[in-house]
Amino acid sequence: MAQKIQKNDHVIMKRDPSFLAKAETLLPTIHQNIIYPQNIITIAQDPDAIDGYLAHVVSEAQPYLNHCFQSGDSFILDLGTHAVGYLSFLCQSVGSPPDAPAHLKFTFGETLCEVVEPFNQYRGWLSQSWLQQHDEYVDVLPAQVNLARRYCFRYLKIEVISLSPKYQIMFKDIKVKTVSSAPDSCIEYHCDDIQLAKIDQVSVLTLRNCMQEVFEDGPKRDRRLWLGDLRLQALVNSVTFQHYDLVRRCLYLFAGHRREDGMVSANIFVRPEVVADDTFLFDYSLFYVDILYHYFNETKDSQTVKELWPIALKQIELGLSRCDKQGLVTDGDDWWSFIDWHDQLNKQGASQGVLIYCLDKALHLAQIFEPEILPKLQQHLDHLKQASHQLWDAELGFYVSGSQRQVSYATQIWMILADVGDLAHQQTLMNNLLSSPPEIGMNTPYLRHHYILALFKLGLHEKAIEEMKAYWGKMVELGADTFWELFDPENPNYSPYGSKIINSYCHAWSCTPAWFIRQYSL
Amino acid sequence: MAQKIQKNDHVIMKRDPSFLAKAETLLPTIHQNIIYPQNIITIAQDPDAIDGYLAHVVSEAQPYLNHCFQSGDSFILDLGTHAVGYLSFLCQSVGSPPDAPAHLKFTFGETLCEVVEPFNQYRGWLSQSWLQQHDEYVDVLPAQVNLARRYCFRYLKIEVISLSPKYQIMFKDIKVKTVSSAPDSCIEYHCDDIQLAKIDQVSVLTLRNCMQEVFEDGPKRDRRLWLGDLRLQALVNSVTFQHYDLVRRCLYLFAGHRREDGMVSANIFVRPEVVADDTFLFDYSLFYVDILYHYFNETKDSQTVKELWPIALKQIELGLSRCDKQGLVTDGDDWWSFIDWHDQLNKQGASQGVLIYCLDKALHLAQIFEPEILPKLQQHLDHLKQASHQLWDAELGFYVSGSQRQVSYATQIWMILADVGDLAHQQTLMNNLLSSPPEIGMNTPYLRHHYILALFKLGLHEKAIEEMKAYWGKMVELGADTFWELFDPENPNYSPYGSKIINSYCHAWSCTPAWFIRQYSL
Repeated sequence: MAQKIQKNDHVIMKRDPSFLAKAETLLPTIHQNIIYPQNIITIAQDPDAIDGYLAHVVSEAQPYLNHCFQSGDSFILDLGTHAVGYLSFLCQSVGSPPDAPAHLKFTFGETLCEVVEPFNQYRGWLSQSWLQQHDEYVDVLPAQVNLARRYCFRYLKIEVISLSPKYQIMFKDIKVKTVSSAPDSCIEYHCDDIQLAKIDQVSVLTLRNCMQEVFEDGPKRDRRLWLGDLRLQALVNSVTFQHYDLVRRCLYLFAGHRREDGMVSANIFVRPEVVADDTFLFDYSLFYVDILYHYFNETKDSQTVKELWPIALKQIELGLSRCDKQGLVTDGDDWWSFIDWHDQLNKQGASQGVLIYCLDKALHLAQIFEPEILPKLQQHLDHLKQASHQLWDAELGFYVSGSQRQVSYATQIWMILADVGDLAHQQTLMNNLLSSPPEIGMNTPYLRHHYILALFKLGLHEKAIEEMKAYWGKMVELGADTFWELFDPENPNYSPYGSKIINSYCHAWSCTPAWFIRQYSL
Repeated sequence: MAQKIQKNDHVIMKRDPSFLAKAETLLPTIHQNIIYPQNIITIAQDPDAIDGYLAHVVSEAQPYLNHCFQSGDSFILDLGTHAVGYLSFLCQSVGSPPDAPAHLKFTFGETLCEVVEPFNQYRGWLSQSWLQQHDEYVDVLPAQVNLARRYCFRYLKIEVISLSPKYQIMFKDIKVKTVSSAPDSCIEYHCDDIQLAKIDQVSVLTLRNCMQEVFEDGPKRDRRLWLGDLRLQALVNSVTFQHYDLVRRCLYLFAGHRREDGMVSANIFVRPEVVADDTFLFDYSLFYVDILYHYFNETKDSQTVKELWPIALKQIELGLSRCDKQGLVTDGDDWWSFIDWHDQLNKQGASQGVLIYCLDKALHLAQIFEPEILPKLQQHLDHLKQASHQLWDAELGFYVSGSQRQVSYATQIWMILADVGDLAHQQTLMNNLLSSPPEIGMNTPYLRHHYILALFKLGLHEKAIEEMKAYWGKMVELGADTFWELFDPENPNYSPYGSKIINSYCHAWSCTPAWFIRQYSL
């Protein structure tokens, strides 16, 4: 995920060297594979295409790359799939001895729009430095060129900016050394439904390409361990790569550098040393409990969970401390809760749901790791659920959020996931949601995941599948090799950042269909 | 030097492994020094300044570099002197953990105009890839950044293109590791005339910065061993650094890869392996003899000269083969002779002079290394000198060149240096030149050197000094730290390449005043 800028650089943070040391020992092996470009393409404008562009194959890559290139030449390579890794090639000269450096420009794109739209016209509010480009000046030819940075791309525009008229160049052995900490093998799953099978496959590649030294949110932009993404990645990991040590590492990383009151950060930097970001999100911190709960269910690794349980419980305590006497999460301008990328969304109702949801997970862990506090936790849970009724608007048939009594998808979804009210009540609520969609909709695959989860929870499998196909299936139809950070079928160019070229097109929180498909044997 | 594009990529070349092996053993030690930026400057337009710009000091560099910088900031460093070397700095972050890469842009300039005028508006005909720039993307901060390429600059513009709003950066320990194969010590020379002393000092720095693995023509652009430049560098080297092994190395390099008929190339590439360029220049090849002659006079290294004498003699033979029966160098469209950077200049007359001049040097070497051919060489010399009279136009009082009977400085200068006619004749010619300057003037310091040499040859020391002061002294007055490849006092923006930002501002062939000053004890 990414969040509109939160800056708290005066917050006091505490390090826990023993947790950090454990995280360090769990540094994963990075697996490498070599892939070669498949085709040379041209890109044409097409108002019907997803981002306004359509690719046309000009040639297979290998025969095309037997050509010589001169100043002013350019071409676009298509790897045929989304890749995360390192570009290398041998640059040779043809003709007279090269009497001037070769200036080459590389533009990397997960999408076509990135290799078409000039980066210097980018006006989004996220840092332009994320846009993937490189200028290489080759002083001595031939040269084996190995670009030092990791790139995330399917398309690569190569521009021969300037040689001298005395020589031309050839690109030999252009290849990408892909990297991932996901093992080469993945649990195989057969799905009769071709569309779901494809969705599963794209989900798995999305997860694979996000699995690096940590579970990254997106390998192009942010490239960082976010707690909200980790939670969903851990879920999919459990039915695909089962790389539980990577989950464990990430749990220790969050535990290793916390705010002085014990709150875990929303995200963690690992280079040059482990540093928690000064961004804190109400819901993300709470999800630490859910990740630990799921990790325990999958691994039964009671030693790790026992060690981290106090950290998890602290998040619940901090969450509860934000509630008023009635047991309602206090709204205000002094907090951040993520829930969805949505400027208009009031977060109170959904956050109430998240707190209850995570408190319930804490109860389950407490049964094993601290049974003596069970009564107290149960009391809190009852109190919070009871308080949630205050948000119920019987006339509208929806839960409301904030002083403006906002009705949103997010609030209803989280009240269902929080198991507020009995099943009949939740079903009625879902029916209301389906029949009278609130104006405040769902912007991200992240919230969409919780919507699908709520449908499954209520036994609405057919509807859940229909919605998955309509959403993730639509991305596949539009050419996605990996699932996108952001997708609004009604507004395909949507970006919360002010430019679609800065969107991430391989994003952790979008990889969850594989979990639904495999968990519910679809 | 640089020459309008000559392309002969089908010429057959021959390697001589034993010469190349000798050149390899003479690879010089590269001496390093560390220098730090002195000032931060702004640059203002000023129509009276040399290239239209004037620098104003904003601050000393060190206090300024204690500031933090954010996206959009930029500043210009002034090293206080011309330098050739490697840039490094420590890039630190301040504020929240850096949540996006730092994109920094570096623009290096020998002159102010290079850091002001956008490179993407460059429209010259020499390769744009020579313009010195670099984009650095720092993914992990803090980072020790060591730029891999060698740059040649006094001014450095640093632009912070993009960070994120969450952090700022600081530049610590910005420094340049300068490189040169010239020893740190140089023969000291005291000159009472302050202006000449300064000219001497600038000459020495010019030579130092051009002395690398070979004598380079210019450390910014071309960066290559050109025979015409080597000849002048070897001259100045003999009165300054006396690094004769570097001269010897360069002589072996030219001998090591020749055209199948034995002609030495105009220039040599040394990386990744020694390759002679497919540019051949009538005058440059002949000058191989002169370099060898001067090398022998300075070192008495008869072993080397004996070994290379056949190569030198071959250049004379090839030069003679271009003469007609009367002994005149044949003009035409099928040859290249350099003489000066001048589109209108007809090269026949000057080339006649160069051939005679070099034949005379060959005679001197033959006295020691092949006395049996002396009579034949003397016969050729007489024949050529005799033939030169055909170019004399008694009415004009000048030698003419080509079918259009062009009168130029170059032709007169080279006839004097070739010692055609007796002293009185030469003095008359020089007087004519001084009193009736031909329209076809002198464009480069390279030809200007030969003009000064001709003045000294005729005993016109005062005039020679006056001209040196008016030309090289003017460059010093205009702020030169090193002497420029091109300078026309009447047209300071002159560039044969279509843009002054591609001109070289530290250029070997311009460093000869130190030789005149020291040789003639000025």
